[in-house]
Amino acid sequence: MTDSTLGRLDIEQALLSSPYHRWLGLELLGSGPDETTICCAWREEMVSNPHLESTHGGILAALVDLTGLFTLLAAGGAVTATADLRVDFHRPARPGVLLARGRPLKIGSRISTAEVYVYQEDGELLVASGRGAYLGASSQAAP
Amino acid sequence: MTDSTLGRLDIEQALLSSPYHRWLGLELLGSGPDETTICCAWREEMVSNPHLESTHGGILAALVDLTGLFTLLAAGGAVTATADLRVDFHRPARPGVLLARGRPLKIGSRISTAEVYVYQEDGELLVASGRGAYLGASSQAAP
Amino acid sequence: MTDSTLGRLDIEQALLSSPYHRWLGLELLGSGPDETTICCAWREEMVSNPHLESTHGGILAALVDLTGLFTLLAAGGAVTATADLRVDFHRPARPGVLLARGRPLKIGSRISTAEVYVYQEDGELLVASGRGAYLGASSQAAP
Amino acid sequence: MTDSTLGRLDIEQALLSSPYHRWLGLELLGSGPDETTICCAWREEMVSNPHLESTHGGILAALVDLTGLFTLLAAGGAVTATADLRVDFHRPARPGVLLARGRPLKIGSRISTAEVYVYQEDGELLVASGRGAYLGASSQAAP
Repeated sequence: MTDSTLGRLDIEQALLSSPYHRWLGLELLGSGPDETTICCAWREEMVSNPHLESTHGGILAALVDLTGLFTLLAAGGAVTATADLRVDFHRPARPGVLLARGRPLKIGSRISTAEVYVYQEDGELLVASGRGAYLGASSQAAP
Repeated sequence: MTDSTLGRLDIEQALLSSPYHRWLGLELLGSGPDETTICCAWREEMVSNPHLESTHGGILAALVDLTGLFTLLAAGGAVTATADLRVDFHRPARPGVLLARGRPLKIGSRISTAEVYVYQEDGELLVASGRGAYLGASSQAAP
Repeated sequence: MTDSTLGRLDIEQALLSSPYHRWLGLELLGSGPDETTICCAWREEMVSNPHLESTHGGILAALVDLTGLFTLLAAGGAVTATADLRVDFHRPARPGVLLARGRPLKIGSRISTAEVYVYQEDGELLVASGRGAYLGASSQAAP
Repeated sequence: MTDSTLGRLDIEQALLSSPYHRWLGLELLGSGPDETTICCAWREEMVSNPHLESTHGGILAALVDLTGLFTLLAAGGAVTATADLRVDFHRPARPGVLLARGRPLKIGSRISTAEVYVYQEDGELLVASGRGAYLGASSQAAP
C-alpha cells in the first residue's frame, strides 16, 4: 500500500462493513505494516458471568480473530478467511473498552499468521491473547 | 449427577444466566455424560461478510467455548473458566440455526478438555470444530 | 485411490521415507478413508522426566502431526505440509508402544484438517489428542 | 530467584536431565525473567522430508513445548507439566542449529502461558512459533 491514508480508510470501511463488528462497537485506532490496533466498546449483552460481569470468551475470541485478519490486511497480506484460531484467556475481562493489538507473524501466499493481544482499556492488563491462521486469496476453488 | 432431570434443569439455568448466551439465542437440546448439544438461533448482527451472509468466526468460537464448558459440567467436571481455545473453520456458516455438539475428552481436577463440532441446522454440514481446555474449581487463588 | 492395497503400500513407503519417522519406530497399522492408525515404538531417548519415565510432549506432538498428515493422505487429501498444530496432553505417557488414531475432519483444496488421538498400547488410555491443519498441493509459490 | 547464576545452573541442570533433551543437543543460551533462549543442534535423524532435508515438525513442536516450560521456570513460574500446545510452521527448517526464544505471557498459580519463536541459526528467519499452557504445582491430585 503506497498511500497509507487510503489504506487506513479502506481498512476502516472493510472493518465496519460487518454487522457483527458494528454490534461490537469496533474502532480502528491505528494500522500499519507492523501493528494494528482496534478497540471494542463494552455492552451488557457481552457479559458471561453476571456476578463477575466478565466479558464472554467468545467476544475475546472474536477480537483475536478479526484483529489478526485486519493486521495482515494492513501489512499487505491478501488474506480472505480465517483457517483456525487459538485463544488463551489470562484474566476475566471487566466492563469497559478493550484494546486489541495485532502483529503479523508470517505473510504467505497460501497461509498467513498473526498474533493478537487483548488489553483492558488502560493498555496494561493483558486479558487474553492468541493467534490466527488465515487463508490467502487464490484462484483455486474455496477449500 | 444422580438425577439427570435436575442436572439438565441446572445446566439450562446456568447456560441462560449469561446475557451473551441469551443474545445468542441458545437452547440446550440435550446433555449427559457423553455428549451435550446446544443450538444457537441466527440473527442479523452475527453476520461477518454481508455479501456472503456468513456467520462471524467469533460466534462460532463462542459456541465451541461455551459448549465445551457445558459438556464438561454435564459430564461431572467441576470446571469454572476457559483456559484456552482452538477453533477450525471448515466452511462459511449460512443464516439459520447452528447445532453445537460437545464431547468430553478428559476430566481432571486441574484441567479438563472437551471437543466440539458445530453443524448447520440439518446436522450434516460441519461448519467449524474445535476444543477447549477448562480450569477446575480449586481452593487456590485464581490464576 | 481405487486400489487400497497399493494405497497402503504407498502410504507406508512415504511414512518410512522420513529419517525421523524411522527413529520413532513407526508402523502403519491401518489406513483408509475414515481412519488411519500408526504405532510408535518406545525408546529411552524419548523420555522427558527420568523419574517418571514419561514420554516427552514433543514425541506426542510429532505423533499428532504425522498421523494427521497420513490420515488425510489416506482419505484422498492432497496435503503437503503442516500449517499448524494443537496438542492436549491428558496424562503422562509411560514406556511402551503408543497408538495414534487419526480421523479426517475436512478435506479442502487449500487447507485440510484432521484430529488425532494417542493411546497407550492397550488402546484404552488416552494420553494426548489434538488436531492439525495441513496445506494442500498448489501450483502457487509456497507460502 | 535471588541468585541468577544459581538460577541458570539449576535451569541448565533440569533442562539436561531429560534424555530427549540430550538427544536434541540442547544448550541454554540465556535465561531470565523476560526471555529464555535455548539452541538445538541438528542431526540427520531429525529430518522429515529427505529431499528437502527439512526438520520434522515434531522437533519444532518439542522446541516450542520445552522452551515455553523453561521460560516460565526462569521467570519464577512454578510450572510442572504442559497442558496444551499450539505450533505454527512458517517455513521449512533447514539443517543447522535452531534458536528458540521464549517469553512469558502470564504466570498464574493454576495455569501459565508462554510464547516461543524458533529461528534458523542466524536468528533472523522465523521457521516456527507457538505457545504452550502449563499447569502449576499444586497440592491437589494430578489432573
